[in-house]
Amino acid sequence: MADALVETLGKALGRDVPTETAATALLHEDRLFPVDPSVRAITRRLYNQIKDLPLVSPHGHTDPAWYARNEPFPDPAQLFVVPDHYVFRMLYSQGVPLEKLGVPHANGTAVETDGRTIWRLFAEHYHLFRGTPTRMWLDHAFSDLFGLQERLSPSNADAAYDRIAECLTQDAYRPRALFERFNLEVIATTESALDDLAHHRAIQSSDWNGRVISAYRPDAVIDPQFEGFHDNLKMFGRLTGEDTLTWDGYLQAHRKRRAFFKEVGTTSSDHGHPTARTADLSDTDKRALFNRVTQSAATSEDAELFRAQMLTEMAIMSLDDGLVMQIHAGSHRNHNGPLFQQFGRDKGADIPAPTNFVDGLKPLLSKVGNEPDLKIIVFTLDETTYARELAPLAGHYPCLYLGPAWWFYDAPDGMKRYRDLVTETAGFYNTVGFNDDTRAFPSIPARHDVARRIDCGFLAERVADHRLDEDEANEIAHDLAYGLAKKAYKL
Amino acid sequence: MADALVETLGKALGRDVPTETAATALLHEDRLFPVDPSVRAITRRLYNQIKDLPLVSPHGHTDPAWYARNEPFPDPAQLFVVPDHYVFRMLYSQGVPLEKLGVPHANGTAVETDGRTIWRLFAEHYHLFRGTPTRMWLDHAFSDLFGLQERLSPSNADAAYDRIAECLTQDAYRPRALFERFNLEVIATTESALDDLAHHRAIQSSDWNGRVISAYRPDAVIDPQFEGFHDNLKMFGRLTGEDTLTWDGYLQAHRKRRAFFKEVGTTSSDHGHPTARTADLSDTDKRALFNRVTQSAATSEDAELFRAQMLTEMAIMSLDDGLVMQIHAGSHRNHNGPLFQQFGRDKGADIPAPTNFVDGLKPLLSKVGNEPDLKIIVFTLDETTYARELAPLAGHYPCLYLGPAWWFYDAPDGMKRYRDLVTETAGFYNTVGFNDDTRAFPSIPARHDVARRIDCGFLAERVADHRLDEDEANEIAHDLAYGLAKKAYKL
Amino acid sequence: MADALVETLGKALGRDVPTETAATALLHEDRLFPVDPSVRAITRRLYNQIKDLPLVSPHGHTDPAWYARNEPFPDPAQLFVVPDHYVFRMLYSQGVPLEKLGVPHANGTAVETDGRTIWRLFAEHYHLFRGTPTRMWLDHAFSDLFGLQERLSPSNADAAYDRIAECLTQDAYRPRALFERFNLEVIATTESALDDLAHHRAIQSSDWNGRVISAYRPDAVIDPQFEGFHDNLKMFGRLTGEDTLTWDGYLQAHRKRRAFFKEVGTTSSDHGHPTARTADLSDTDKRALFNRVTQSAATSEDAELFRAQMLTEMAIMSLDDGLVMQIHAGSHRNHNGPLFQQFGRDKGADIPAPTNFVDGLKPLLSKVGNEPDLKIIVFTLDETTYARELAPLAGHYPCLYLGPAWWFYDAPDGMKRYRDLVTETAGFYNTVGFNDDTRAFPSIPARHDVARRIDCGFLAERVADHRLDEDEANEIAHDLAYGLAKKAYKL
Repeated sequence: MADALVETLGKALGRDVPTETAATALLHEDRLFPVDPSVRAITRRLYNQIKDLPLVSPHGHTDPAWYARNEPFPDPAQLFVVPDHYVFRMLYSQGVPLEKLGVPHANGTAVETDGRTIWRLFAEHYHLFRGTPTRMWLDHAFSDLFGLQERLSPSNADAAYDRIAECLTQDAYRPRALFERFNLEVIATTESALDDLAHHRAIQSSDWNGRVISAYRPDAVIDPQFEGFHDNLKMFGRLTGEDTLTWDGYLQAHRKRRAFFKEVGTTSSDHGHPTARTADLSDTDKRALFNRVTQSAATSEDAELFRAQMLTEMAIMSLDDGLVMQIHAGSHRNHNGPLFQQFGRDKGADIPAPTNFVDGLKPLLSKVGNEPDLKIIVFTLDETTYARELAPLAGHYPCLYLGPAWWFYDAPDGMKRYRDLVTETAGFYNTVGFNDDTRAFPSIPARHDVARRIDCGFLAERVADHRLDEDEANEIAHDLAYGLAKKAYKL
Repeated sequence: MADALVETLGKALGRDVPTETAATALLHEDRLFPVDPSVRAITRRLYNQIKDLPLVSPHGHTDPAWYARNEPFPDPAQLFVVPDHYVFRMLYSQGVPLEKLGVPHANGTAVETDGRTIWRLFAEHYHLFRGTPTRMWLDHAFSDLFGLQERLSPSNADAAYDRIAECLTQDAYRPRALFERFNLEVIATTESALDDLAHHRAIQSSDWNGRVISAYRPDAVIDPQFEGFHDNLKMFGRLTGEDTLTWDGYLQAHRKRRAFFKEVGTTSSDHGHPTARTADLSDTDKRALFNRVTQSAATSEDAELFRAQMLTEMAIMSLDDGLVMQIHAGSHRNHNGPLFQQFGRDKGADIPAPTNFVDGLKPLLSKVGNEPDLKIIVFTLDETTYARELAPLAGHYPCLYLGPAWWFYDAPDGMKRYRDLVTETAGFYNTVGFNDDTRAFPSIPARHDVARRIDCGFLAERVADHRLDEDEANEIAHDLAYGLAKKAYKL
Repeated sequence: MADALVETLGKALGRDVPTETAATALLHEDRLFPVDPSVRAITRRLYNQIKDLPLVSPHGHTDPAWYARNEPFPDPAQLFVVPDHYVFRMLYSQGVPLEKLGVPHANGTAVETDGRTIWRLFAEHYHLFRGTPTRMWLDHAFSDLFGLQERLSPSNADAAYDRIAECLTQDAYRPRALFERFNLEVIATTESALDDLAHHRAIQSSDWNGRVISAYRPDAVIDPQFEGFHDNLKMFGRLTGEDTLTWDGYLQAHRKRRAFFKEVGTTSSDHGHPTARTADLSDTDKRALFNRVTQSAATSEDAELFRAQMLTEMAIMSLDDGLVMQIHAGSHRNHNGPLFQQFGRDKGADIPAPTNFVDGLKPLLSKVGNEPDLKIIVFTLDETTYARELAPLAGHYPCLYLGPAWWFYDAPDGMKRYRDLVTETAGFYNTVGFNDDTRAFPSIPARHDVARRIDCGFLAERVADHRLDEDEANEIAHDLAYGLAKKAYKL
């Protein structure tokens, strides 16, 4: 009787009383919400207003061939383990060889190919993901997409494998059906400047209405240290009919390719540089630098300076053609030399490095930073720059916007730190909403949902301590989930 | 009936039940307090003990002419928008030209001068300040000082303008009356070493009892890269009767001006250097360096070295004359070159840069760091140094104290991070209470109030998890709000 | 009546209602637990499962002579004040001379020796420790070990002194009895490569069963800037019968000493370098470098490069002999030059500096980083590297593990930031549980207890927002408190 009263009153007062026998369904409806009952109640109200908004995915790395060909995804291991460096890097860090996880060798050495064998090894190590966003994304897909009810473990691994494998044979699990199920309003992929965009053109000439666009990523012809740079320049010339071994022809080739990308709906370019350095050289110096980096192997300093100058050139082109410019700076790629030799790029060995935006961006900003029609979105892997550099820069320069918490920080605690560090100086309107930036198609709804939950919790805390009114928080929640991404990326 | 019981019990248990129809008065009495009911209750108790303590403002940039002349403030736009770079930088970052906000051009090009027009533009963009401290300071002044009850918006902009404008015509809104209304026990302004302190002397010889003192800020005659450095040195010589083109005369001139400042009540000097670098050169090297920087345009390295050496010289003078030394290091001033050309200094384009205190301060500290009578207060814009460098340094060297969260970090979340990062190593007694550091006179009560609320919340959290007893927290709250500032600044 | 109902219901709902008259026992049973009642309840459940687990102390600096000789500790001041730089640095930072605290001068100048006089001075300044971990460790020992019930203050200082002094005369307060009372399963001390390990051998040949092992710390023969480096090398040769002035003999001497340490149970080496730099030179370059640093005074660059190369050599030896390698990088030792001249090392003037692990560790990791049998545990004093560098590195390289929050960060808020910054990328299983790393024997139970409380609170928060299930949290809590330390250190 007393217990019943307590429980009734507890519920009425918004108190959620967890007990040792609490159910462990994979997805709790209040997951990631602040725990204080009054804040949780506000969070719920905010979240309920925006949770069903369409997903806008303005930057990512899914494969356009999926949407073009609409073929079934292969087995569960090929869907969840083999291509996802978030997943296999964690097992590798605990001593599991990549070969056993089916990750292909660069030289063709045989690796494990049996999906079920890989899946069992994955399930044995599933506890390693405790506390990580990977765990949440996986559980979300397991539960929401495939109806699994139990936490993955060695004892249920086979059953889970069978269930997912069976689903993947159904039409409802083909890429286009999932695109629609995910409520994607638009998704951007990212293609090299040398790509023929055949998949995008195929999608557009098909009878399917899904909006799949690309982003212009010219690293292969801008970074003198990129594999095959000199050959890439030649292909760049063939594709555009320009003499890309002259500075003028090279710039003109960029203009033509940007226009080619725009024809299939592209609204942005993307630049993955190791640092945030930009440059604004004289015309003479630019030409001399171009000759040095194209006529022989570039020195490290010349390579860095050329990348720096090209960010400014890209910004100038954006002023003309309106492409939104994204700068993803600060990753030390392929840190693990021996592993890179064996397995190639993107194997979980890209490590963030300290990044200086204050000095780095100054030449570009001095050139075009006060242009109100230019949009440059900056992403960082160095959280120390959020409050110290990026928020003050974005809170001043008209052209500058802050991308969301990126990569290692695209996770609940990382997102909270991002808002905590950025908002007081830059506010909400110098940020651009959420990017999932993923290759893992089934994780897209989970990632957007995490961002929406965390942002609503952040706003609710500020309503609860009276820094924001709830009607404002509602408006902001909508903007962060939907409006800002559309506006920033001109979608 | 059940609802009434729940509400009664909820209140009794300290549970504040926000609802969608909650009132939106501009200032909630519990604003910025932790949301957990038990912590909030402790916070309230702590805050109520200290909220009405007089304001001690030991460092800031208000204009002494206000207190000397006691003239009415001009229109609302001139009070809140035109001079406040916190305000206009945010609108500028979203594409609003500074001309339309009445910010004067350096070359005299005409800009908007109609207060109401500027105010309306400001009100249209008021949502940009959501989540920022600027919003809280403005709302505090709007509500507390001018009695506005509604959030500023385009629809009530004219009414708000009229109300504020009407108030400004009343004697109760003149500077001296506001000084008293704000319960200011003392305020320090900051003047150049070349200033004649006429306003301060006028205040002191008036029949008004408000305590307005200055701080000795010698950047114009210490920084070889300061505009007009060589002319400044000449004026420095004229003012002191010393040959300021010799090293001995130059130092003597500083001593005389410091004494001159002390005559009007000055207790501190202030040094706004781009880095924390100090030096301790030999006598020969000092003289040679002085000759180089005074006889021609200094190289960047010589300029930096001279600033570095002069911090040590100032510390040595402080040992003699007792002035408390403030070092505000790490701002990359006037980052936006084109804007600086058009509009001049202090236009919201000062961007923090990484700052190294461990190596930077070592020469000075090796020279005088163990002097228990010396007080050096260090401020940073690089939060990464709080826990890594500044707290360990202040928790060891007798001369060293940590200034409060500064500039971009003088905001609720910034203050919380400051205490979180500093306290476990440096404790509370190597910090110096609050500085408002503002040019915006009406924001002073709001800024102190924010600091008091955040500090009480921080203490309450430590009472609630049993790291502090409440009687100790009460003592600390009093020290942070009042006692430490008086002691650190010898007020 | 209403009050009684409220109190009853409040308690039933898990609401702890602090009042102004709350008791102030030194140790509250819920200290450091999250304040939200539902999270606190989960924390309690987790903590109760693991609070009584034995203490595993795999890295620290207690004196093996204590356990070998089992003599009583001297007076309270010698136990708590004189040897603890955490304690005396804080008083020194507020102007108390070290001489008055009994800290011995390097040159033998007389200092205070009266325990009671020192203790009274300490008690007068006890408020300086408010908000610091030192305060908690002291209160824990005062309360748990010596039965003190009141906060230390000038008025009870003598009584506390008498009580502690009396206890120290009892056999129950001798080192071995305390070792058992603390429930220490194993403790590691740290000895120089030149140590004879006589105390460890004495312990092992005694009839006492306490497990006290050492760690191999070769800084004195690896760092060319260490005091007496050249003499140290000679003694290194005498101890091993190797010609330590040749590269081959020098390496062989290390191998022999490592084997000698292993004989008394050593499972790890420890390396206290100013930076995280490593190197992988050619054989020719290694020999030339060795000759340069051993034949004359090394340049700073050569000294740094030699330390860098030797980290790699030590890692290679670990592959052979299985010692776990600990790298404690990033402290600027003896920052206060004048104080170092007067008082020597370890006087609270070691200041953290920015540390670059991405570039620093690359040579070593390229050499041996993919070896699954190698274990390298990295500690940092630069928290900015937790999320940016260390978690991504440890979440990828098989050999790499993250040590717990170290030194200034071995404190509740520091530990929370550590978990917050590390977990989403590295998970829990690339960390190694807790190290107390202390010289202060009575603080050991307090330090482990703080870590257990904070970790349980961290886990409980993730159970409460449904990121973890409680059964998982229980498992993790056990691992963090006990299992991971045993596994990582092969204990």
